[in-house]
Amino acid sequence: MEVQAGQVVQERLSGDKAAELAPPSPGVLSVTPLGGVGEVGKNFTLIEYGGKTLIIDCGLRFPNVAEHPGIDLIIPDFSYLRQAGEVVGLVLTHGHEDHIGALAFLLRERPLTVYGTRYTLALAQGRVREMGLLERARFVEVAAGGTLELRPFRLRFFSVCHSVCDGMGVAVGTPLGMVVHSGDFKFDSDPVDGRRLDRELLRRLGEEGVLALMSDSTNVELPGWTPGERSVRPGLERALADAPGRVFLTSFASHVHRFQQVLDAASDTGRVVCPLGRSMEGNMRLARELGYLRVPEGVLVDLATVQRLPPERSVVVSTGSQGEPRSGLARLADGTHSDLKVAPGDVLVYSARAIPGNERTIGALINNFYRRGAEVITERNDRVHVSGHGSREDGREMLRLLKPRFFLPVHGELRHQVNHRRLAYDEGIPSERVFLLENGQRWTFDGARAAADVFVPAGEVLVDGLATDEPDSVVLRDRQHLREDGFVVCSVGLSRRDGEVLQGPHLLARGLMAPDLDGLLAQAEGQVHAVLSEQAAYGKPPDWDQARDLTTTTLKRFFKKRLQARPVIVPAVLEL
Amino acid sequence: MEVQAGQVVQERLSGDKAAELAPPSPGVLSVTPLGGVGEVGKNFTLIEYGGKTLIIDCGLRFPNVAEHPGIDLIIPDFSYLRQAGEVVGLVLTHGHEDHIGALAFLLRERPLTVYGTRYTLALAQGRVREMGLLERARFVEVAAGGTLELRPFRLRFFSVCHSVCDGMGVAVGTPLGMVVHSGDFKFDSDPVDGRRLDRELLRRLGEEGVLALMSDSTNVELPGWTPGERSVRPGLERALADAPGRVFLTSFASHVHRFQQVLDAASDTGRVVCPLGRSMEGNMRLARELGYLRVPEGVLVDLATVQRLPPERSVVVSTGSQGEPRSGLARLADGTHSDLKVAPGDVLVYSARAIPGNERTIGALINNFYRRGAEVITERNDRVHVSGHGSREDGREMLRLLKPRFFLPVHGELRHQVNHRRLAYDEGIPSERVFLLENGQRWTFDGARAAADVFVPAGEVLVDGLATDEPDSVVLRDRQHLREDGFVVCSVGLSRRDGEVLQGPHLLARGLMAPDLDGLLAQAEGQVHAVLSEQAAYGKPPDWDQARDLTTTTLKRFFKKRLQARPVIVPAVLEL
Repeated sequence: MEVQAGQVVQERLSGDKAAELAPPSPGVLSVTPLGGVGEVGKNFTLIEYGGKTLIIDCGLRFPNVAEHPGIDLIIPDFSYLRQAGEVVGLVLTHGHEDHIGALAFLLRERPLTVYGTRYTLALAQGRVREMGLLERARFVEVAAGGTLELRPFRLRFFSVCHSVCDGMGVAVGTPLGMVVHSGDFKFDSDPVDGRRLDRELLRRLGEEGVLALMSDSTNVELPGWTPGERSVRPGLERALADAPGRVFLTSFASHVHRFQQVLDAASDTGRVVCPLGRSMEGNMRLARELGYLRVPEGVLVDLATVQRLPPERSVVVSTGSQGEPRSGLARLADGTHSDLKVAPGDVLVYSARAIPGNERTIGALINNFYRRGAEVITERNDRVHVSGHGSREDGREMLRLLKPRFFLPVHGELRHQVNHRRLAYDEGIPSERVFLLENGQRWTFDGARAAADVFVPAGEVLVDGLATDEPDSVVLRDRQHLREDGFVVCSVGLSRRDGEVLQGPHLLARGLMAPDLDGLLAQAEGQVHAVLSEQAAYGKPPDWDQARDLTTTTLKRFFKKRLQARPVIVPAVLEL
Repeated sequence: MEVQAGQVVQERLSGDKAAELAPPSPGVLSVTPLGGVGEVGKNFTLIEYGGKTLIIDCGLRFPNVAEHPGIDLIIPDFSYLRQAGEVVGLVLTHGHEDHIGALAFLLRERPLTVYGTRYTLALAQGRVREMGLLERARFVEVAAGGTLELRPFRLRFFSVCHSVCDGMGVAVGTPLGMVVHSGDFKFDSDPVDGRRLDRELLRRLGEEGVLALMSDSTNVELPGWTPGERSVRPGLERALADAPGRVFLTSFASHVHRFQQVLDAASDTGRVVCPLGRSMEGNMRLARELGYLRVPEGVLVDLATVQRLPPERSVVVSTGSQGEPRSGLARLADGTHSDLKVAPGDVLVYSARAIPGNERTIGALINNFYRRGAEVITERNDRVHVSGHGSREDGREMLRLLKPRFFLPVHGELRHQVNHRRLAYDEGIPSERVFLLENGQRWTFDGARAAADVFVPAGEVLVDGLATDEPDSVVLRDRQHLREDGFVVCSVGLSRRDGEVLQGPHLLARGLMAPDLDGLLAQAEGQVHAVLSEQAAYGKPPDWDQARDLTTTTLKRFFKKRLQARPVIVPAVLEL
């Protein structure tokens, strides 16, 4: 056990209190993750030098109904960027939502030049187009292996293997040294598209000298190497060969390599493949048009063809692997899909992994397939899924190739960052040169000394329909309060002259649970009437604020005592 | 792949639609799980013969904030029991909440005689006492190995090993044959308390002939045997020996064997042990008083002693392993515990497993320990936890010992039941003699033929404070609706004479997110005023229902169009 393990973290914590915001001095290089650390998603990193800012990724994260009721998605807080220096460009490392999903929201604030590989840009343009913001961005395609001059930065891109095609990492040359961002990566010696992680380029970068490495920590707790994507092919092929009926397969829509293997396995086992739903169809079409998906002759068919063929001749591929309630997969599980039914002999191949928080929903989905008589194959029964994130040895190899002077483990929870630091320690990087950054913690290097004691604003912005809000807003707290015990509206009309109760009180409750609600509300009305009448007995014009407070207090006490409940109380006191 | 896999399930589904409720015929034996199948918790099983009913277990399950906002706990629906024959008794197999937690609610309906082992009864009395219902129950202690005559049933109890002490299974002799309920079990050849699963008794029961076996399916997907409880001792001891600072250890408060090992390991490594919080203290005291926990001299201390000693001399044991927000552990993680602080060098031993749905909260808890500089040891780093449920080979051994004619896999999700059926198939029990029951699906045997085509009411009852409700109630739907977009109250006063708008409309919103809420509400007020005034133009006394409908429809449309939001609309239309 390393005694240092926690101490560095502890320093960060105390720095948090002294949070302040001054721009980095002109001769200082800074690297600031503004999302993506300590949570799943919302990657957004700034590299600053000499008054210029480079952005790497601009992702979103998905809300959790418990913490964020009614919220559609969560994007980074752009307020620090608003005060930062001139933005020279935004680089997207790959096309997953947690790296590209907030781009449209940033474009709403400012026009940008966006750099990425062909497939990444194609995915990124999707939401930007939906929000009508295409003209705010200049999309510039770059290629892994290429370079890009965005002064004072000189970028070199290197290909990486991941669960989406065309991923890359980026080496950012600066006047004070090179900062490398790994992107999301694993090593794969025999990738489906033949496009390996560019080990040779990394070795050269390492020889040139890397000042700081930001590296993906997601799976660093797992021993060994993450197996290559082809390792799922035998499992997929077994499933397709053995299933007595139709095969339903679910994975992320952008996982082109997975679908390539499904298409190939289908071709080899005499099945056709049909994408289910708009996003799956769209992604397949896109990947095919751009040349990332090679479709064997006659294998890709439409739903009508699948319905005509005997079930054992087809594979239906679908999104919905996270239990999304409106996906085709959820409707198949519920038996409410209008075109297809799951029948005994069918097989669900769950070719994905649960995002933390979705386990229960996914469990229910899988049970429903069983309930309809299907067999279900998951990672537990057979190798039908493999991660796109490198394990311990992948992480080690990255460190060995790049030999960074400073190490900034990112992309993962703190537990993963701590494990990644331990790995770096094994590889000879002392703990004082490893910085476990939190979101908004700015790492700086002045040419001699590195530090990370400044915290910049790095909150989150919740998006709900057309509105946005802060995570600790009154609206969110009201929603959390409302879902517990609902609300009670009390409308009562008082005389302007002497406060006499002329109308009501009339109570209306929603979301409040009580054994005899009507009887209880009648009693509560009586209490409100009594306290307001008592006030009126003085014969003076009413104090309206006091009347509202009295109503609220009386009802709060009443429901607390009678139901142990705390509904939101709304006094609607009318002046008559 | 077995083609039969799903078909039996499919028949159950169609039976569901034809659900009907007739009592079993007098000469028919029936077994009905009314909870505990397809979900975690709420075990409640009825065995009926000749107009007499035996109840096995009466547990609760914990709600999930997404599905059950504001709900405290979920208990079985007792309505079928109300129509069933005379209850001869209730047997508790062990003291976990999912087996005993709803007892008090059943006692509120009817007095009962409750049978269980000493420790089980001690735990069961807890909530019953809190709810002031002790006099409604007659608690009768039974011992594993003993027999009990509850005519027409003859019960024999057998000891099992589980993650709570004093667990048992029960063999219920009936005129038509013996039904065995396994309880929650694993085989453990060297249990901490020396109390083995009574293999010899099971073998004898098997020789006598078992008509039907209900057996725990929870971990049947896992290969091999579940390791014995002692297998965690080396990991615990390593953690206590190596930690440079204080050790915090969390597990379920009723896991006496785990705490026995912690006490012993502490004694061997020169540490003292302090229980944190009321429930942990209470459980330890109880287990000690009843003789289930042997405390080495001087090892158990109070908080004041721990605060005096250097951190490396103590272990603090706490509940809160599921991330419960008000537990001592959560306060330690947040840094808000009034008496203790987590410091660098401290170690959290997470000696438990996440209940599905709690993963995110627990992840946050663990990250917070890392954030304070602690090290965290979980199942991933070392063997510091082992399940109390048997794996595949434990399940197989149960089947081999009892050789049941019919098999009813219970306690687990459908995916586990399906796997358990496959195991039984391997052991020579054909699929037509295996019944994958759903909650409320009544299995019957008339002496010759078994069937399971009747579904009795087996819903759930949600408990919220002092009230109860059904899962699909209006109240629950209102809460789910309210947490999405909140509500808008519109108070408006109309003239009784001609419908003229005399007061308002005045809008008040809570939980609604909008870029300029006040401005928007003012616009909405204008729209409502306009539509109501238009009605008033006819000069007739208003139709009050129509006025309310108009207000609601106008506002619904308005917020849908302007915010893509659907707040709950409450029209408070006053007659002036």
